[in-house]
Amino acid sequence: MFELDPGEDLTLIVDVVQRFSTDILSQQYRDFEANEAIPEAVLNSYSALGLSAMELPESLGGAGLGSRAKCTILEELGYGDPGATLALDGIGPALYALAELGGDSAVERIILPRLSDPSARIALIWDDGDARKKDSLCRADNRYSGTVPWLPCADADLLVILDKQGASLIESGFTFSPLRGSGLRAAGAAELVLDQAAIIERWDEPAGAARALAKWQLYIAALLVGVSRVAAETSREYAMERVAFGKPIAHHQALAFLITDMHTAVDSSRLLVQDAACRADAGQPFVEAAATAFVEASENALFVTPNALQIFGGQGFMQDLPLEKYMREARTLSLLAGGIDRAKEIAGQALCRIEGTVELSALALSR
Amino acid sequence: MFELDPGEDLTLIVDVVQRFSTDILSQQYRDFEANEAIPEAVLNSYSALGLSAMELPESLGGAGLGSRAKCTILEELGYGDPGATLALDGIGPALYALAELGGDSAVERIILPRLSDPSARIALIWDDGDARKKDSLCRADNRYSGTVPWLPCADADLLVILDKQGASLIESGFTFSPLRGSGLRAAGAAELVLDQAAIIERWDEPAGAARALAKWQLYIAALLVGVSRVAAETSREYAMERVAFGKPIAHHQALAFLITDMHTAVDSSRLLVQDAACRADAGQPFVEAAATAFVEASENALFVTPNALQIFGGQGFMQDLPLEKYMREARTLSLLAGGIDRAKEIAGQALCRIEGTVELSALALSR
Repeated sequence: MFELDPGEDLTLIVDVVQRFSTDILSQQYRDFEANEAIPEAVLNSYSALGLSAMELPESLGGAGLGSRAKCTILEELGYGDPGATLALDGIGPALYALAELGGDSAVERIILPRLSDPSARIALIWDDGDARKKDSLCRADNRYSGTVPWLPCADADLLVILDKQGASLIESGFTFSPLRGSGLRAAGAAELVLDQAAIIERWDEPAGAARALAKWQLYIAALLVGVSRVAAETSREYAMERVAFGKPIAHHQALAFLITDMHTAVDSSRLLVQDAACRADAGQPFVEAAATAFVEASENALFVTPNALQIFGGQGFMQDLPLEKYMREARTLSLLAGGIDRAKEIAGQALCRIEGTVELSALALSR
Repeated sequence: MFELDPGEDLTLIVDVVQRFSTDILSQQYRDFEANEAIPEAVLNSYSALGLSAMELPESLGGAGLGSRAKCTILEELGYGDPGATLALDGIGPALYALAELGGDSAVERIILPRLSDPSARIALIWDDGDARKKDSLCRADNRYSGTVPWLPCADADLLVILDKQGASLIESGFTFSPLRGSGLRAAGAAELVLDQAAIIERWDEPAGAARALAKWQLYIAALLVGVSRVAAETSREYAMERVAFGKPIAHHQALAFLITDMHTAVDSSRLLVQDAACRADAGQPFVEAAATAFVEASENALFVTPNALQIFGGQGFMQDLPLEKYMREARTLSLLAGGIDRAKEIAGQALCRIEGTVELSALALSR
């Protein structure tokens, strides 16, 4: 049976997370954004929820809940504040690269000791291996050099750099320089420079790397569903209250249709995310489905959030309402985990059975 | 758990239907279209599959399979030929109006006696109750008059007219005049004129009428998923074979991305259809979800099918390939069951809690 009901165990967790998300994240987001950081009290209460361990196997002391549970939780957190979610979940999607490529032993050595420390940070970075790009990352002689112009975090103790072949672990030889971020301000923002940073561990396995990226894409896609949902609901509620020409603006057909399209977009993103997550949980191939879900969740968020702002008219762009924030968040999230174009490449390669990359036409022509 | 696997019982049925669809419908569609009818041998072999009874409760001799099973089957049949599907399933979605509004007794009296006759036809008609439209249907003194300018069938023994309040059953006082149809040619096409046609039975229950329309929308949406899927797959296969500038055209990025978007559209339509069908099967509210699925399946088909034709270039428009046919079918199916706009109204009314209709702005302004 096809069943979106999260089931009893997860329902309890979802309830708690919903409360955390609406009572804390949604209430305090302006402070988080202004400070570009999360107060320690909030970090501690998030940590107390124990969500970081939810995906770890029970043998390692985790809850053994799968991708689908994680995506359900992330949608709720994204509803509250996706930037704060990235800051609160200090290990975040780096878990996937370590677990898929390094296995239980990497999780035991690298993740477990950091689980109880709410300020531990592992940054996950995507290296698209395109040496033709200026400032791109360069891996040689077991060292990494180069610049990552923007990361949605202020600092990190450890770096995991994921590429098509595998992942590298780095613990020194890098500098974070703070930037003023736009979207996801609560997460902080920095430029990262690597200067002959030593790779202290390297795992090579292209299939595992593809799964790690796919799970990262699902992570971001679930946050995008949350942002799209809060944007769609906020603007719908406004449209049902605000009266123009004698009736609520939601009762004017053009707006009722737009609101319908926005909610449909949210539903279809969620279904694709959950479908891909269920495939992952069932041990089925899910790389193409995750890429597809990421593309759809990104594109739908980029449709929903500006229209939510539009429904509010001019005041939607004022900073005292969260509408402009949703728009920034949708755009910023869609740049993570390799971005929309990389996800389309992955899905396109699978669909069209392309070996190697689908080259950007401009690059292909220039050779 | 979220599970798209149809399960053991249904898998067997789906296999049989897939074979029927690809071995018979996909092979003979040009003959069906040319003759605007289905040969008796094909009618009989469809009838032998026993699918008409699949949704009937076991107490009435049916298989007791629900909406989700029906939608899965309809996607396969739509993959073969949606016009033929309408012609083969002579009772079709009229079943929903009779079952939802007339209950078991109507099913026993009206459906069961016709089940074994492959040539029995019940036409289902949507009366949008808009008396301001020219030639619209008019119900007064227990009689129906007016014109339905196009129906995707050549003839019928019985009419069921569904409106927002309920449904009416009519067995005489009407004339079908054959038309040359464009999309869904195999189903035949006719104009229907009702001249003081007596309503022999009338059921009033707005909630039941809404459910009957919703199931009809799901029926059509599932066919649209099938058409979208065959169009996406056919053009993808072509793009992987056809070489231009030294490689298959699918390996050029613009096409790989388009193919990805097309397959994503098919997947998201299917998920929305199955989600709504599962809600119906679980006895949950499904009217808004079905309307949403219909809108998305229609709009996605109207994106996928012209692009499938485009990938073939000029030859896509030649009648010896099925691409132009998929495009016609998508457009024609999207006009059934009240059409896209009616479905958007239903979803919009539910979302915006609008009582009454969301009036077309032009009509609202003209008063």
